[in-house]
Parts: sequence; structure tokens; C-alpha cells
Amino acid sequence: VEAGDTGEVLRLVEPLHAADIADFLEQIDAAERQAFLAIYAGEIDGDLLSEIDETIREEVIESLPAEVVADAVRDLDTDDVVDILEDLEAPAQGRILDALDDADRVAVEQAMAYPEGSAGRLMQREVVVAPEHWTVGEAIDFLRGAEVLPDQFYHVILVDPRMRPLAYVTLGRILSARREASLRDLAEESFRTVEATEKESEVAYIFNQYHLISCPVVDAAGRLVGVITIDDAMNVLDEEHEADMLLLAGVSEEASVLDGPFATMRQRLPWLVVNLLTASISAVVISRFEDTIAAIVALAALMPIVASTGGVAGTQSLAVAVRALAARDLTSSNARRVVLRELAVGAMNGLALAAIIGLAAWGLFGDPWIGAVLAAAMVVNQIVAALGGVLVPLTMDKLGLDPALASGTFVTTLTDVMGFLAFLGFATLVLI
Amino acid sequence: VEAGDTGEVLRLVEPLHAADIADFLEQIDAAERQAFLAIYAGEIDGDLLSEIDETIREEVIESLPAEVVADAVRDLDTDDVVDILEDLEAPAQGRILDALDDADRVAVEQAMAYPEGSAGRLMQREVVVAPEHWTVGEAIDFLRGAEVLPDQFYHVILVDPRMRPLAYVTLGRILSARREASLRDLAEESFRTVEATEKESEVAYIFNQYHLISCPVVDAAGRLVGVITIDDAMNVLDEEHEADMLLLAGVSEEASVLDGPFATMRQRLPWLVVNLLTASISAVVISRFEDTIAAIVALAALMPIVASTGGVAGTQSLAVAVRALAARDLTSSNARRVVLRELAVGAMNGLALAAIIGLAAWGLFGDPWIGAVLAAAMVVNQIVAALGGVLVPLTMDKLGLDPALASGTFVTTLTDVMGFLAFLGFATLVLI
Repeated sequence: VEAGDTGEVLRLVEPLHAADIADFLEQIDAAERQAFLAIYAGEIDGDLLSEIDETIREEVIESLPAEVVADAVRDLDTDDVVDILEDLEAPAQGRILDALDDADRVAVEQAMAYPEGSAGRLMQREVVVAPEHWTVGEAIDFLRGAEVLPDQFYHVILVDPRMRPLAYVTLGRILSARREASLRDLAEESFRTVEATEKESEVAYIFNQYHLISCPVVDAAGRLVGVITIDDAMNVLDEEHEADMLLLAGVSEEASVLDGPFATMRQRLPWLVVNLLTASISAVVISRFEDTIAAIVALAALMPIVASTGGVAGTQSLAVAVRALAARDLTSSNARRVVLRELAVGAMNGLALAAIIGLAAWGLFGDPWIGAVLAAAMVVNQIVAALGGVLVPLTMDKLGLDPALASGTFVTTLTDVMGFLAFLGFATLVLI
Repeated sequence: VEAGDTGEVLRLVEPLHAADIADFLEQIDAAERQAFLAIYAGEIDGDLLSEIDETIREEVIESLPAEVVADAVRDLDTDDVVDILEDLEAPAQGRILDALDDADRVAVEQAMAYPEGSAGRLMQREVVVAPEHWTVGEAIDFLRGAEVLPDQFYHVILVDPRMRPLAYVTLGRILSARREASLRDLAEESFRTVEATEKESEVAYIFNQYHLISCPVVDAAGRLVGVITIDDAMNVLDEEHEADMLLLAGVSEEASVLDGPFATMRQRLPWLVVNLLTASISAVVISRFEDTIAAIVALAALMPIVASTGGVAGTQSLAVAVRALAARDLTSSNARRVVLRELAVGAMNGLALAAIIGLAAWGLFGDPWIGAVLAAAMVVNQIVAALGGVLVPLTMDKLGLDPALASGTFVTTLTDVMGFLAFLGFATLVLI
């Protein structure tokens, strides 16, 4: 298709949603992308630019004529413009800002003044407000007369004369009420605002916890400065989950399957080097028992079993704890109970695994003591794994760090070292 | 607080949102919960029941008087009733169904007839529809006259005389248009419906991809049967993420930090036993090289380094691939490119790690050959890890299985076995 027929390309792409065109652009390679954009540039709109993944957005924007980009961003709500600007270098940012109308540019610049990852960056400036003494009829007449309304709005926010939000009314209630009804009487029972400096993860939590659709954003003085809608919150939630999963696996949180090999290497090598160092601790522990291994070489073959099963148990306990911390199901009020539960689970799983591996080793080597050493080491390491899996992220959280960050490396180092130490230690005591 | 003062308890809880009361109930222990419910039973409403985590919902419902539960569920939209029913045993389900009005009971029973995890279970039956030839004024008069409207609705769905949805209009557009305007002219440009039998993961994907707020659900004949709202889709997305993360770690996907120790053991022990078996493969591999280890015992201490660093690299590659498959960023059209990228990254990281560990071992043992063996094994295992991390989930996906399921165990078994095999194999060739 890329090879020439312009009309055909446009015909095929025309019915697609911007999100699908963006996916298509992400999945073809860079040369195909340039060829496609050369044909398609005239049709590009703001929605497409905001759908494209940040890994290739800069490349796409740079290959487009400046007027095309300018036209495209002019249609967007401010939150989408901010989202695009955040990931661009300064010169490209400048070009886009210059393309905006004065009012929009000021709004975008104000939003960019809030710290990255804050509610201020997430919000759109376009809000629909009404004085609280208005009736439904006045609100409808105002909306009918309004020149521009936001693409998305789900509530009319009631404000006092100093623009401080007091309550909001869903559009559904306004539509179903009589014209004479007072907006105040139709307001939702529960009403929350967030401060513009609030962290976006906190915003996503509030949306998820209280099933919000939109949430007014206020400045330090309590005045309305914007509104965050649920699609933005859903996006943050999605990114947070992704970051947790990647951080747990020891990958930098911006990692994407669309990154090139060098970017990928930079994201992964640091944790591999850290692991090289922590794995050396295991090597040192084992080297202390060289006499034991020299006496019974079979121990070298058996020792990874205890360490590896401990690693899996630690990872299990860790994944549950990190999720629970993120969802705020694990808090200081039930931490003690959860740790005790892990202790019990570690002991029970340890005993079950010890029975299996102990009997198998006894049968295989004809020596009950080898089985006993394996079994005892297994119980110890399962308990260490289960406790480590919950205590490491709890400690990270207490220290104000992301519990997913590097927890995996800590926990598997712990289970490796304890696995080798317990197994070789018991073996030295019992078998030598 | 639990210890007695009823008035005080009610006063403290009164200003809280149902979601917060539910969190509180989840975090206290079972005895405290019973004491609290005995005091609070009279105040319990449907929102609270639907907020409570399913792990304790059954316990809570059973400890409440039947009339309280009946009153509580009667206020809920059908999707929330279905959500509560799904996790209950048959007798408790029956009691709740009996409490509903006839119309609601039929609606809930119809929803329950759809398979678990389908759009039909997720949707609410309460919909707001209008014939497509209506004007804004007719729609507003209809809404003002309606006796009951859903708690949440964001669109008026336009239907043909056979109740097939044709388009929808946002409430914002209805409010801002003149009364004479035709609904048809205000309809959203893009309009999607889902079939009631569609999987909920597909529904969540559609909401996320196309930034939907609500989506009509149709039966096989294309007739409107309900509507799914974004909060339900957000919930599904949240659960899917959680399931991916837990499955990757080898924990059953319903695992919660609120489960008791026996439930937790049942969720984790199966994968630990599987790991015991796969770890035995490593043990068998190592035992083939007992003569080599007996000759140079230091090898026993060094061999876990290669295996463990491979495990980390495999987990990194795997986490990125599983996320990309879930987000549909990794598809058949770019799979080849992503696999080649992993190959390149594995080789580059392998060379970098090989240089570090090779030089360190040479310096430490004064023998360049030990360094060379470690370095060569490291390169091989990093490549295996990077490829395994993407090929295992891709294969699972091709086979129609969840790519997160057990991928972690496969990949670390692969990197363990290859790590030991490459290291001890090279050592036997070079050092003996």
C-alpha cells in the first residue's frame, strides 16, 4: 500500500478512528511511517497527535509541516495540548505554543507551570460553571448561548462569586428537572475537589474509589482553575499499573515495546548490573562452604532447588503486597495481620514442599539425612520468602519510596542468599 | 470505638463515603466486623454492599438481617446487583433475588444468564432512549416526565422502532442546542455498540482505546438490551491489570491481601510445586557436571550468578511483552521486529555484563579462563533470556491462553537451565 497509490491509502484510512490510525503508525517501521505521513499529512488532526505514543510522537511532529501541526493542536482541549507538549524538546514546544491563540497559549503555559505528574497538568481549563442561585432554566439558556463549550463535560459546577466551587449538578439531573428548579437543590450529595498541586496518582485513586466522572481542580486559594475528567484519570491508572508491573520486573517505567534496542538496553542494564552485584553475595556465601561441597558434590546440584522455590514464593508474596499497597488495601491498620498471615502461609507452604522434596531426595539418594537437610532449608526459606515479600514493600512505602521499585531484586537476593545459606549450613552441620 | 458507644460509632461513620466505610470494614478483623455490623446494620445501603470486597461480602451479607439486605439491594442499578450476586452461593443469591421487585428480578436474572465475564453481566438494564426523529425539546420533555431515570447516564441513545441503537447524543449537546434542533443532527460522529456476549476485557479495551463514556449493549439481533458505563469499564481494566501482575508472579488472579492463610496457601502452593519440578531440571543438569565441579569447587559458587542474572533479564523482557500484548501494542504485524530487538538487546546486555563479570573473575581468581567461561555463558544466557521473555508470552497468546499465565515460571526455568548448562558446559570444555 505504501508503495504509491495516494488515493487508495486515503480511502483505506478514512473510516478509521484516530486511535486506530495511531496504532497503525506505531506498528509500521520508521521508513514506512515517513512514506505514510508524506501522503497523509494534510489529513492529520489534533486527535491523531494526542493518540500517538510518546515514543514516536516527536518523530511524527518533526516530519510534519509546521502549519499542519499548528492547525491540528488548535482544535484540542488544553489538557491534550499539555500532554503533547510534555514529551517534546523545548524548540518543538515553542513552535506549538506559537501556533495557539493567545488565550489558549496562556492557559497551556499556566498548566505547564504545575509540576509534572500533578493534577494541574492533567486538567482541562475549559469548565462549565454557574452561580449557585441559578435555576435550571437559566443554566440551559446560558448553555444554549455559549459560543464554545468543552468537548466533554458531565457536570455544571456551581461557584460562589469568587469562583470557589461549591457543588456540582449532573447534566442528567438538569435535563430531567423543571426549568424553575434551583440548581442548588439538584446538586450531587457528595462533592470533592482536588488541588492543582495534588499528585496524579492521588487523583486516579479518588476517581476510582469514589466512582467520579469529573472533578473540579482548585488553586491554593480554593478558586476553580480547571476540571479533570474520568478518561484522564483512567489513563493515569493505566500508566500506574504499567509502571508497577515494569518496576517490579526491574525495567524503567517508561519502557515500551516500541523503543529501539539502545533505549531498551539503557532501561534494563542498570538493574542487571545491580543483580550481578547481589548475585555475588550468593557466590560469596556458597564459597564459604566449598569444603562441604567438595565432600558431597551432589549438594551443588540440589542447592538451587531451595533458592529457586524461595524466589517464586517471595515473588508471589511481593506481587500481592505491591498490588494491595497500590489499591490501599494494605495500610498501617492491617499490616500486622497481613504479615502474620504471610508467616503462617510461608510455614504451611514450607512444610508441604519440605515433605515432597524431603521424601523425593531420600528415595533418590537413599539417605534420609539429605532429605532432612533439604526439608529443613525449604521451611526456613519459605518463611523468609513470604515475610520478605511483604516486609520489603511495606518498608519502601514507609520510607516514601515506590514499593514496586527494586523490591523484586531485594526479595530474590534475600531468598537466594537464605536458600544457599540454610541448605549448605544444615548440610555442614548434619552431613559432614 | 468498637467497645460499646453506639451513638459515637454512628457519628464517626456518618460523614464517610460508602467506599471508605467498605475499606474500613475490610481492614478490621472478623470479630470487630461483627461487632460493628451489629451496631451499624440499620444504616447499611446498597452502595456499601457493592463497595465491599468480594472476599468479605458473603460474610457481611450473612451476618445482616434479611430485610436490611433486601432494602439495600432494591436501590441499586441492575449491574451492581449482578455484581453482588455473582460472588454469592446459590441460597444467598435466592434470598436477594426474592427481595427485588418483579421487573428488577427479571432484569437481573436475564443479566445472570449471560456468561461470567461478558458484557451482559457488566451492563445496566436502565437505559435512556429516544426515537431518532425526536427534537431536543421532545427529549427534554420526555426526561422531565420520566418517573425513574438511571443513577448515571451520559447519553440519550437514538433507536429505530425495533429498538436497534442508531447513534447517541451527549447530554451536553442536548443542553446547549435549541429546542427545535433534531437529535439526529447532534449525534456523536463515532458510535459503537458491543454485543452482550462480548468478553469484558474486550469492552474495557474499547472504552480505553476510543475514550468512551458509555456504550450501548445489543443482543444477537442488534436490539438494545443495556448500557455499559465507564466506571464499570475502569473496574474491569483495574482487575485485568491486577490479574496480569498476579499471574506473572504465579499467584491465582483472585488473590487478595484480605484472604485468610488457607485460601492464600491454596492460591500459591500449586505454582510452588510446579517450580519444585522445574527446579529439579536444573538439578539434573548440574548433576551431569559433578566431575567438573569436583575438580574445581569454585564453579559451584559462581554458577548461580549466570542463572540469576538471566532470570532477571527474562523477567524484564517478559514484563514488557505481557504489557504490550495486553495493550495491543504487540501484534502479529510488529512481532518480528520486537523479537529481533530483544535479540539485539540480549546480545548487547550480555556483552556488557560479560565484560564486568569476566574481568572481575579474572582479577579475583587470577585465571583468565574462568573469566572467559563466565563471560561466554553470560552472553548466551542473556540472549536466551531476552528471547524467551518475548517468545513465551507470544506463544501463549497464539495458543489462545493468557500470556501472563505461568510465563514467569517457564522463562525462569529456561534461564536457570541454560545458565547452568552454558556455564558448566563451557567450564568442562575449557577448564578441565
